[in-house]
Amino acid sequence: MSLTRNETDSMGSIAVSADCYWGAQTERSVHHFPIGVARFRWQRPVIRALGILKRAAAEANVELGELEPQLGVWIMQAADEVIAGMLDRHFPLVVFQTGSGTQSNMNANEVISNRAIELAGGVMGSKQPVHPNDHVNRGQSSNDTFPTAMHIAVVSELFSQLFPAVTQLRNTLAQKARDYHDVVKTGRTHLQDATPITLGQEIGAWVAQIDFGLAAVHAALPGLYDLAIGGTAVGTGLNAHPQFGDLAASRIAQLTGQPFRSASNKFFALSAHDAMVQVSAALRTLAGGLMKMANDVRWLSSGPRCGIGELRIPETEPGSSIMPGKVNPTQCEALTMVCVQVFGNDAAVAFAGTQGNFQLNVYKPVMLHNVMESIALLADSCTAFDQFCASGIAPDLDRIQSNLERNLMLVTALNRHIGYDKAAAIAKKAQHEGSSLREAALALAYVSPAQFDAWVQALEMTSNQ
Amino acid sequence: MSLTRNETDSMGSIAVSADCYWGAQTERSVHHFPIGVARFRWQRPVIRALGILKRAAAEANVELGELEPQLGVWIMQAADEVIAGMLDRHFPLVVFQTGSGTQSNMNANEVISNRAIELAGGVMGSKQPVHPNDHVNRGQSSNDTFPTAMHIAVVSELFSQLFPAVTQLRNTLAQKARDYHDVVKTGRTHLQDATPITLGQEIGAWVAQIDFGLAAVHAALPGLYDLAIGGTAVGTGLNAHPQFGDLAASRIAQLTGQPFRSASNKFFALSAHDAMVQVSAALRTLAGGLMKMANDVRWLSSGPRCGIGELRIPETEPGSSIMPGKVNPTQCEALTMVCVQVFGNDAAVAFAGTQGNFQLNVYKPVMLHNVMESIALLADSCTAFDQFCASGIAPDLDRIQSNLERNLMLVTALNRHIGYDKAAAIAKKAQHEGSSLREAALALAYVSPAQFDAWVQALEMTSNQ
Amino acid sequence: MSLTRNETDSMGSIAVSADCYWGAQTERSVHHFPIGVARFRWQRPVIRALGILKRAAAEANVELGELEPQLGVWIMQAADEVIAGMLDRHFPLVVFQTGSGTQSNMNANEVISNRAIELAGGVMGSKQPVHPNDHVNRGQSSNDTFPTAMHIAVVSELFSQLFPAVTQLRNTLAQKARDYHDVVKTGRTHLQDATPITLGQEIGAWVAQIDFGLAAVHAALPGLYDLAIGGTAVGTGLNAHPQFGDLAASRIAQLTGQPFRSASNKFFALSAHDAMVQVSAALRTLAGGLMKMANDVRWLSSGPRCGIGELRIPETEPGSSIMPGKVNPTQCEALTMVCVQVFGNDAAVAFAGTQGNFQLNVYKPVMLHNVMESIALLADSCTAFDQFCASGIAPDLDRIQSNLERNLMLVTALNRHIGYDKAAAIAKKAQHEGSSLREAALALAYVSPAQFDAWVQALEMTSNQ
Amino acid sequence: MSLTRNETDSMGSIAVSADCYWGAQTERSVHHFPIGVARFRWQRPVIRALGILKRAAAEANVELGELEPQLGVWIMQAADEVIAGMLDRHFPLVVFQTGSGTQSNMNANEVISNRAIELAGGVMGSKQPVHPNDHVNRGQSSNDTFPTAMHIAVVSELFSQLFPAVTQLRNTLAQKARDYHDVVKTGRTHLQDATPITLGQEIGAWVAQIDFGLAAVHAALPGLYDLAIGGTAVGTGLNAHPQFGDLAASRIAQLTGQPFRSASNKFFALSAHDAMVQVSAALRTLAGGLMKMANDVRWLSSGPRCGIGELRIPETEPGSSIMPGKVNPTQCEALTMVCVQVFGNDAAVAFAGTQGNFQLNVYKPVMLHNVMESIALLADSCTAFDQFCASGIAPDLDRIQSNLERNLMLVTALNRHIGYDKAAAIAKKAQHEGSSLREAALALAYVSPAQFDAWVQALEMTSNQ
Repeated sequence: MSLTRNETDSMGSIAVSADCYWGAQTERSVHHFPIGVARFRWQRPVIRALGILKRAAAEANVELGELEPQLGVWIMQAADEVIAGMLDRHFPLVVFQTGSGTQSNMNANEVISNRAIELAGGVMGSKQPVHPNDHVNRGQSSNDTFPTAMHIAVVSELFSQLFPAVTQLRNTLAQKARDYHDVVKTGRTHLQDATPITLGQEIGAWVAQIDFGLAAVHAALPGLYDLAIGGTAVGTGLNAHPQFGDLAASRIAQLTGQPFRSASNKFFALSAHDAMVQVSAALRTLAGGLMKMANDVRWLSSGPRCGIGELRIPETEPGSSIMPGKVNPTQCEALTMVCVQVFGNDAAVAFAGTQGNFQLNVYKPVMLHNVMESIALLADSCTAFDQFCASGIAPDLDRIQSNLERNLMLVTALNRHIGYDKAAAIAKKAQHEGSSLREAALALAYVSPAQFDAWVQALEMTSNQ
Repeated sequence: MSLTRNETDSMGSIAVSADCYWGAQTERSVHHFPIGVARFRWQRPVIRALGILKRAAAEANVELGELEPQLGVWIMQAADEVIAGMLDRHFPLVVFQTGSGTQSNMNANEVISNRAIELAGGVMGSKQPVHPNDHVNRGQSSNDTFPTAMHIAVVSELFSQLFPAVTQLRNTLAQKARDYHDVVKTGRTHLQDATPITLGQEIGAWVAQIDFGLAAVHAALPGLYDLAIGGTAVGTGLNAHPQFGDLAASRIAQLTGQPFRSASNKFFALSAHDAMVQVSAALRTLAGGLMKMANDVRWLSSGPRCGIGELRIPETEPGSSIMPGKVNPTQCEALTMVCVQVFGNDAAVAFAGTQGNFQLNVYKPVMLHNVMESIALLADSCTAFDQFCASGIAPDLDRIQSNLERNLMLVTALNRHIGYDKAAAIAKKAQHEGSSLREAALALAYVSPAQFDAWVQALEMTSNQ
Repeated sequence: MSLTRNETDSMGSIAVSADCYWGAQTERSVHHFPIGVARFRWQRPVIRALGILKRAAAEANVELGELEPQLGVWIMQAADEVIAGMLDRHFPLVVFQTGSGTQSNMNANEVISNRAIELAGGVMGSKQPVHPNDHVNRGQSSNDTFPTAMHIAVVSELFSQLFPAVTQLRNTLAQKARDYHDVVKTGRTHLQDATPITLGQEIGAWVAQIDFGLAAVHAALPGLYDLAIGGTAVGTGLNAHPQFGDLAASRIAQLTGQPFRSASNKFFALSAHDAMVQVSAALRTLAGGLMKMANDVRWLSSGPRCGIGELRIPETEPGSSIMPGKVNPTQCEALTMVCVQVFGNDAAVAFAGTQGNFQLNVYKPVMLHNVMESIALLADSCTAFDQFCASGIAPDLDRIQSNLERNLMLVTALNRHIGYDKAAAIAKKAQHEGSSLREAALALAYVSPAQFDAWVQALEMTSNQ
Repeated sequence: MSLTRNETDSMGSIAVSADCYWGAQTERSVHHFPIGVARFRWQRPVIRALGILKRAAAEANVELGELEPQLGVWIMQAADEVIAGMLDRHFPLVVFQTGSGTQSNMNANEVISNRAIELAGGVMGSKQPVHPNDHVNRGQSSNDTFPTAMHIAVVSELFSQLFPAVTQLRNTLAQKARDYHDVVKTGRTHLQDATPITLGQEIGAWVAQIDFGLAAVHAALPGLYDLAIGGTAVGTGLNAHPQFGDLAASRIAQLTGQPFRSASNKFFALSAHDAMVQVSAALRTLAGGLMKMANDVRWLSSGPRCGIGELRIPETEPGSSIMPGKVNPTQCEALTMVCVQVFGNDAAVAFAGTQGNFQLNVYKPVMLHNVMESIALLADSCTAFDQFCASGIAPDLDRIQSNLERNLMLVTALNRHIGYDKAAAIAKKAQHEGSSLREAALALAYVSPAQFDAWVQALEMTSNQ
């Protein structure tokens, strides 16, 4: 008894393991592209997106009379199994294959056609009654299906992973901002002591920055909603029904609950992926904001005794294999490493985005991979950071107060009363003599004690509301 | 007779050339930051933005009763001269100074106060009756004014330089797309011959991509319209009138004709410049699109005899110092070099954007510099490319036709009639035998001559409309 | 019966699955850093490097009298099992953890101590007789062990993976250069026809560029041979025997066959990883060279009929799901996508490299990850490219000859005889009239027929040797 | 009287201002490439390099009998004037021109030929007796001369600007390391208090890192010493004397005092500029090290009262336009902004380096520009940083001592005596109770008072030598 079956394509016949649904072209790709196999196989979200695409295409083709209804039933059932994750192990291909994603499109076509053949009681590999190209790929080309799957996968993961995770962290921080609304503390500019702020204001700036980053990602969605489907090989829609693109896009919209639509210029949709570049850039902006926040958290919690020490963060593990009792801001470190990775991923995406020629950009898989990785890493690390760090942030009120009292920049409150130059003289005198601001101010006789006490009030200086 | 005068600041007195309006802090910066002096002095748009900012601030302060009206009159007149470019030589500072732009803010304060003193008949350097800090900088800090000037400068140059230049190029290409609407030619994917398109479709994809890039830049405007002004030192607005930020922003809006507004979170506006990061990323996306277009142009015009040769572009100079008669796609080369530069500039901006700490990001000048440079280079190079290349693009109709006739991928039109596998056999036979598609098809007897002629029609395959 | 056991660390007790060797700190990390778990677990080379490190440390400690010999025996046996890959599943941690790699260092300490305890007949989790910190980590800190493991892993993979794979490809190309040593063809500059070269010269330039890239990677080795071991927590070597660093490094050198040595400045070795930055940059240079080569290959093989078409490359799979018979340069596409990924990885490494503070850079794991990924991807893709593309490259001699005959830049050979200006006139006349160079030259009467034939000889123009 | 003269090239005649030496091709480039004119004209070092190249070529051609000696005399005199900077204003072209630098090569040819004509008593524009192509450009092409000039310019500026400036800073820091050799202070890892080091060790790590960066730049020199000269149009050396490349390179070596040589593979030397990519990467590594150092300096000097405050740095200007008496680490900010710029420049260089096709990379000017800018900025900013910051760094001994005394990580010294776990318990008790380490240790009775005092000695913990 044979453990393989023969599969054929336009190059001839090739043996495929009998327990695999895939066909000749997938097998050839497994053979020819053993690149990064341990880490670069397509993961669930991309396989699912291919399933959604193929189901939607079948629906549209049946409705347009391009596909026999019974074939459509079998194809849709097989596609549903792809969507559900039941056939993931039949998608063995990696990122580094042909730059159009043709082999992954054919992987989907082959798996779905063989599974559909099985459902129809046919012989796998026979292409009867369901042909991978003529039926599953009906009215399609890799050149329009793969970028369509790219957009489906990215939008789906943004909504299912990134937005919830980042929003949860944002909300935790927003609550912290409210909790510490009235904790007055030293502001810092140029790493130097500056006029006071509240801890709520400080944390609120992080929230505002994360909101900006999230808004930037949202602003990239319209480009992602534009689908290449219907353009087929070069954008002209050759061999597709004229209404196929619109109809397939509407079916994808139904299946995903997202307002996908057929792109108005299919030639652009195949030859460039600037919507991917834009969403990657927005993820980079978001990562930049998260990095700034995480850096602030670790600096504010630096010490415990020889740093700033104004914040306390949870201890989740011993910090050092040699220094007993050390606690480190490890969640900050993991998050900032993720941010650096997102920057690297974005550099790859943007570079790839420039390298299209004529009717096709052949860096599609690497662009998809990097955007997906950035989404997954940001989501995972925001969730961990939220749970194991942000939610446990608390001020060290004693430290904050002692720092505030020593802060010479409270002198700024005197500008309006005695002018910048005299105020500067007070601050310099205090610093050089190691005295308090009040002592220096009175020694210079620029203000009376009562004036100093009335004018120099840290809380008022924060304009807290 | 002395050629210098003494200027003072909180660090003491320093001699300044008598024919310069600037004061002590500018002079100190000239001395301490001799970095890239030949190429990194702030240019017109940044100086102008500082003038606009200072005028608007004076207007707002007068209106709020924070500044004596007569002082306001002198300050506004001096600021108007800054805006008009009359005092550019009094702005000697370079990008690589303090990271808050404090020295450039003080440069503006000093020049305006000394010019205002002159207008008032006072003694320059006396700070009477107009003090650089207490009056010109009233209710302001470098920390909110410099990012405000950043946004003013960027938005102004986008509208005055970038948008017109890119739009002009886009319109030229759009006209070319219309002109060559019915020129059927070989499509290319993976650099390999593919199904036909029209030249209009090919050029139209460039237009669509440029439109996408322009839209991305436009999408970054809302973040740029948010101004830090009113936040003063750390975002609290200390020493500014509570309505100062809103009023100054509205005056800036009036002076520029752009819908600037006071940022809702001033702490974010000082500690991060993600709007700059976003606009830089959008410029990168635009550059990526321009690079793809310029690459297509030079490949399509490659040859003249041993390349693709389907387009002709204007000859603007001898191409080679050694090869007589050579003509090169030099405008494509200049434009793609600009695109590469924009990528580098963006990398600097995004990196800088991550490095804020606490209440301030101290990479403001380098972020501004790179965004301004990207805008200027893209504008200049699009104008040159439009004028000296795009407007002269013309098809080589003979070459296009002969290429089209030999293109084996016309076979794709047969898929719907005889299936993918038989169509593949025809194409392979023709390629291996060096025959025409028609010859191979008939030899294989998969179609009749009449069928072939009816089904394989290049123009129809383009779905041209 | 219990399926877990209790493991303890300085934070207390935690349940660990009974079939795992790891201890409390690894378990805490699994819990707190569920980031990118599917793709970012440390792979074989890093685990192996940790094993080598721990074995070498045990050897050195025993030799220096810092570790009881019997404990050393058990530790070394356990470490050998780590090296051999027998315990890989006991290393569950991911890249995005603490930035010092402390948790992976402790993972190694815990697995080795528990396995050693098992070998000693003790109770796992008891830390008796082998303690993860006091014995396995003896004289070490994560801060010096993890960067040591980084260097071991990188050097090992360079020699076992990268150099052989790239060299094999380089040798294949060098053979092709010899094979086609006398095939004269059109040179191309600015994508425009230029003076002739031989195919051997053209391919030889790729070989030279790859050699340069390989040399650049080799030039980064000295920095990688410097090991941090012996620096312990901050570089002072506290708690390590004064000779421990040198001795451990020499043992690592023995175990690996590479000239590792103790770094002369341990403070630098902990606080920065510029050797990693340098090797990453060299990999980027190599990738750039491979990208140029792969791009040349696909452009030279473009067509088959409407492109340049001077090279033929193997067909390994059907090129298109819609265009029958299409063959695409898929190995070029995979390789260039890898190159783009290497650029992205390098951007992450270089960024991370700047972010050290004081005595530690806490971006170690992300730097290691990206360098390892670049090495693996370049090795895999060069192997595939070599096997499935480069080795099958062949010239299309007809096409090469017909292109050469039409090439107007053969006129350059006339410069020396009639001057640049007359030669230019000939080329321009030929191009504008569509005539041959010879026809134009004779029509202009700048040369006699005999002179033309004697002076314009393509092979001679190549200075082929 | 006419203010212009006619200049001609193979495209015809064009009017050039009579007071300019340049000819037709330069004039055409001025007209067609008005891109970034204010900032992107080639500066002194590039013009000088072109002069050196042209002089060396003339020497070689005369020696080889390729150029009439008298013509050589005039050309060399004109080239000397270019080298000396006497003709800088006759080099009006910008970076963004043709990607081979042809127009700048012709600019040099035209200026030198016209000046030579003038010296010969001829008529400028007549090309008699000195022709820009046939004589000045004899045996050359832009394709080999421009990259040759690139290498000359880069190597010259490295030696005249970068190495001295960085070395001076390095030496200042090395002296500081010696000066503060015995100042024991808190070490910091993960921003958290760690075991003690000396200030000399801390500063010494910066020195070691800068040394590594300098060594990396030096390691890039061999690639830069390889010159393209002799390759002419495509690398074959067509129209050059067979010994021209070697001889011209040796003359360049003489003129510069640097061991330049003719590249062994000219095809590689024209089609890729990986030596530029490598030197750019090394500059990036150096910048990364400088950034880490500058960040350490500003964090260590943060405060003055609410930060770490262990270092004092010179005050060179008032720090704030609103906060009187504020002093900021402005030199650190300028330097780190330069480092960010170098990262951006490097991204452009590396990207450009990948984009060669066939026999030419047409991103030469943008690669040269960015490398030159990085060199100049690093040199300038290191000089400023050295003079205005590094040389004035001093420890705040009181702060250092008080921090050291409170540092709980001194507990690490107990590991060897009581084990990691008990030491951890001591540290945790002290931190949670706010007590000293000694108090906690004695309370837990893990050590006697005498043992504690004998074992916990900060200076000993530093292994200072």
